[in-house]
Amino acid sequence: MAGDFKVTPYKVEGKIDYDMLAKQFGLERIDEALLERIRKHTGMLHFMLRRGIYYAHRDLNWILDEYEKGNKFYLYTGIAPSGPMTIGHLVPFMLTQWLQEKFGVEAYIQIPDEEKYWARGRPLEEIHELSYDAALNIAALGFDPEKTKIFFDMEYAKTLYRQAVRVAKRITFSMVKDAFGMTNESNIGWIFYTSMQAVPAFLKSVEEGHNVPCLIPLAVDQDVHFRLTRDVVGKLGYYKPATIEAKFLPGMSGDAKMSASSELDTIYLHDDEATVKKKVQRMFTGQQATAELQRKHGGDPDKCVVCQNYRYIFEPDDKKLKAIFDAERDGTLLAGEHKADLAKRINAFLEQHRRNREKIKGRLDDFIVRD
Amino acid sequence: MAGDFKVTPYKVEGKIDYDMLAKQFGLERIDEALLERIRKHTGMLHFMLRRGIYYAHRDLNWILDEYEKGNKFYLYTGIAPSGPMTIGHLVPFMLTQWLQEKFGVEAYIQIPDEEKYWARGRPLEEIHELSYDAALNIAALGFDPEKTKIFFDMEYAKTLYRQAVRVAKRITFSMVKDAFGMTNESNIGWIFYTSMQAVPAFLKSVEEGHNVPCLIPLAVDQDVHFRLTRDVVGKLGYYKPATIEAKFLPGMSGDAKMSASSELDTIYLHDDEATVKKKVQRMFTGQQATAELQRKHGGDPDKCVVCQNYRYIFEPDDKKLKAIFDAERDGTLLAGEHKADLAKRINAFLEQHRRNREKIKGRLDDFIVRD
Repeated sequence: MAGDFKVTPYKVEGKIDYDMLAKQFGLERIDEALLERIRKHTGMLHFMLRRGIYYAHRDLNWILDEYEKGNKFYLYTGIAPSGPMTIGHLVPFMLTQWLQEKFGVEAYIQIPDEEKYWARGRPLEEIHELSYDAALNIAALGFDPEKTKIFFDMEYAKTLYRQAVRVAKRITFSMVKDAFGMTNESNIGWIFYTSMQAVPAFLKSVEEGHNVPCLIPLAVDQDVHFRLTRDVVGKLGYYKPATIEAKFLPGMSGDAKMSASSELDTIYLHDDEATVKKKVQRMFTGQQATAELQRKHGGDPDKCVVCQNYRYIFEPDDKKLKAIFDAERDGTLLAGEHKADLAKRINAFLEQHRRNREKIKGRLDDFIVRD
Repeated sequence: MAGDFKVTPYKVEGKIDYDMLAKQFGLERIDEALLERIRKHTGMLHFMLRRGIYYAHRDLNWILDEYEKGNKFYLYTGIAPSGPMTIGHLVPFMLTQWLQEKFGVEAYIQIPDEEKYWARGRPLEEIHELSYDAALNIAALGFDPEKTKIFFDMEYAKTLYRQAVRVAKRITFSMVKDAFGMTNESNIGWIFYTSMQAVPAFLKSVEEGHNVPCLIPLAVDQDVHFRLTRDVVGKLGYYKPATIEAKFLPGMSGDAKMSASSELDTIYLHDDEATVKKKVQRMFTGQQATAELQRKHGGDPDKCVVCQNYRYIFEPDDKKLKAIFDAERDGTLLAGEHKADLAKRINAFLEQHRRNREKIKGRLDDFIVRD
């Protein structure tokens, strides 16, 4: 059934129709003209932009208007750990890092270390460890320590709570009930939580004492937080934050979204070589039942999770990506080789990532702000 | 109609039947045996205890059991400013100060500077000023700076939020809805708030790394917060806080509770001499229509607000209080003189209070803890 899917920050179900989702959420599409405007400033486009992985936005043209007037924006994104970070989690951070570099702007990165305790019952101690690990993963992606602030809600609560107080006043239970699917039996922490997530969207304006435009790269499931946020932040007299929104890296089986809590559906950044190999083996390719049939009929790269992994993250070069897609389509690339190649590519990526983590480890505190 | 009254932290209505209230809330009465137990440690009893102004409790016997085993309790009380402090607000603080002195224990005093923004829409800037003024009023009552911590929620949020997170997880919207009369249109700050008020009831146990008994002096309208708190704090593995609960100083017109937000129903700690005189003039005495009739029939000290002001706060000496009550009852004390005497007494009290405030002003920071 068309439209038979559900996307909230706490649940992604069904086969997502991203066009319909953009309409439902009231997002604008990222079109060629907008990409061209970005390219003017960045020289080239990030492959996630070229490939429509970031496909929708709010007020991105306004962000560029302001930028062109000399009014720099800042970036805000984040992650609420409920498990170790996956390759899917890289999508917003890779774009954020790229935007920071190309536009020379600051980035605020929130790691709420209470959200999944409230929303999912994860133990606080576990989240605490996951949060530091996430910070290290993020810093290792090449963020500029001079221009990046990473913070954990509970360690930055004096700064955040004061502002969350102002947000919470303007959001009712009815509003969060509709937005997040809460019930009367939901805990009051989870009910309050969106106030904390709203704060970094105007925190720099508070700090500077004047309005600073904010751009939020995010996966589209988080949009509802920022719909509420935009409304409230506007009422508080700050600029409404702009957003740039991504589709989900598909899960192993071709599901809409890779799940961080489903061990087998997910490649973690900490997975070792053998584990990655094993997991990639399980990826859905949609290839024909036999090598012979595959050679004859070919496959569909749009449905092949191996191809999609290249497209989302592991093959930045468009020509090389096209070669892979073509080989999948014309049946010359069989599943075994296809998967072995991707496993190699992911392992090389993760090995480099681990080296970057090691290098940055001693300097993590250069990124973290605390009260 | 019997029982036709309502007592919540956000609304006190009707003529309160304190016996029925204790039953409704599940409180134990403070009886002679319990008073005797306290007297054993304090030598004498505070007049508010002798007179049954503090009339109910939870687990106060347990507090004394632990104390007698050498396990000292600490005190926790507070005030959420929505207006300047009134003489009625003194009731919990005067007893808390006395308990601190007599038992040699610490006191934690919470001044939530967000609650009335959420619950009543008071401006934050106004609350901020009122909060500092309240801290000065409280410190001026003779608290020991070595043994007292006063904190404002927003300035102590790093400490408080971390613990409130644990509380909020265990309270549902249904629970606060029932307890505080919220609706779906209540804001999510107010819904969350009780989590912050719960924290000081176990904060010392967190700080010490072992369980410390906590005793909370309060006006009975706050009981519902601590019913929730006791439940949650028990689940977190800490001692449930004990409480000792007071009746309300009646309002000018004989209403159940002096209202801090009804200017004319209230004597503020900052009122000058003339204002106090004028306000005391308005007090309900229940005396007869003429001096002649009053001399003949006398009045009822239990209904006379002037008498009750002496009883609650301004006449600690039982013999002198009895003389005043007798004179009211037998008709020898006419309203004019009665009121003039009380105004003089209140003004002397407030003048001393202002001197104490001045003396302590420069040392207020000795009491305040911040993150």
